[in-house]
Amino acid sequence: MFISFEGIDGSGKSTQARLLADALRAEGRDVVLTREPGGSPGAEEIRRLVLEGDPDRWSAETEILLFTAARRDHMERTILPALAAGKIVITDRFADSTRMYQGLSRGDLRGIVDQLHALMIAREPDLTFIIDMDPAKGLARAKARNGHEERFEDFGEGLQARMRDGFLALAREFPGRCQLIDGDRAQEAVAADVAAIARKSLAWTARA
Amino acid sequence: MFISFEGIDGSGKSTQARLLADALRAEGRDVVLTREPGGSPGAEEIRRLVLEGDPDRWSAETEILLFTAARRDHMERTILPALAAGKIVITDRFADSTRMYQGLSRGDLRGIVDQLHALMIAREPDLTFIIDMDPAKGLARAKARNGHEERFEDFGEGLQARMRDGFLALAREFPGRCQLIDGDRAQEAVAADVAAIARKSLAWTARA
Repeated sequence: MFISFEGIDGSGKSTQARLLADALRAEGRDVVLTREPGGSPGAEEIRRLVLEGDPDRWSAETEILLFTAARRDHMERTILPALAAGKIVITDRFADSTRMYQGLSRGDLRGIVDQLHALMIAREPDLTFIIDMDPAKGLARAKARNGHEERFEDFGEGLQARMRDGFLALAREFPGRCQLIDGDRAQEAVAADVAAIARKSLAWTARA
Repeated sequence: MFISFEGIDGSGKSTQARLLADALRAEGRDVVLTREPGGSPGAEEIRRLVLEGDPDRWSAETEILLFTAARRDHMERTILPALAAGKIVITDRFADSTRMYQGLSRGDLRGIVDQLHALMIAREPDLTFIIDMDPAKGLARAKARNGHEERFEDFGEGLQARMRDGFLALAREFPGRCQLIDGDRAQEAVAADVAAIARKSLAWTARA
């Protein structure tokens, strides 16, 4: 089973991904916790190439190609081998992040993202948790984290609000796999909801 | 005008690209001489990522994505601005190299190369010189060059022969822009042929 976590910066998605991995491991399940961009040695190198240096060093189109290359490597080297071995894969971000971020900067890019995904990745997660969060709170939490260098976080509240809208739109676009979770609650309450939905989904998968 | 040089390793294509640039500059023309993979600062970084390290570190599909990312950057930062400024662009290798090399390793990859090209690059050179060369002679010349580390050259004569066939097939596939040049002659004789064809093509372009 392949599970992704998505949400705006500061939504708590990384924490929730880790908490779900911990909960499933505590039940004796074999879980691989990974992240994007990155998640395999090659993809981490591509991540550095994209995220370090001048933000304008790559055009949006080149950036989409680099992210797709990283995702392809991540799929081949980390995700698919783990799934083939019967493990549960939990990834902090996947293709929905690319759809949302690139579509946000220029609407015409969404088509390119989708065509590249169809051609080179094809696979979607079985289950995607979209952790929803008030943009102002998310931004404050993201800023409070020190040493976290992602350049995508160097934005304001207006952009955070548009990102949230982007994720909400993706939740409506892919209702079959997306679960919208209210992240504006105590961590434990959010984690309990997430774990309950994941367990139900795993039970369905086991039955199928 | 956008001109590319293609050919097997040791065919003399890089030398001929340089000689054509020299000849056109001597006539007072403004020429940008570039190469792939690479040709812009970002593309050169991607080139290092692809060509350095373990040859098996990237799958063919990831490699095609990285080469397409490098080509997109090369187009945006070097080729298109030069063409827009009325300059002649001469590149040592372009998309035909990707078509040939990737198609050679696995026939089904040619479709992916073409779809990525159509989606992210689209443009073809106005004129492509395919420098044809006996595979054994080309290999001997490639091996004689020291300090030249391209891993694609770490192959044998059988592969060189298949590469030559691949380029000959491309010359037949794109007869409108491809000029097949016998590279198995004195450098000056080859250069004279190349320059004559380029001048004729430039005259046509100027008239159009």
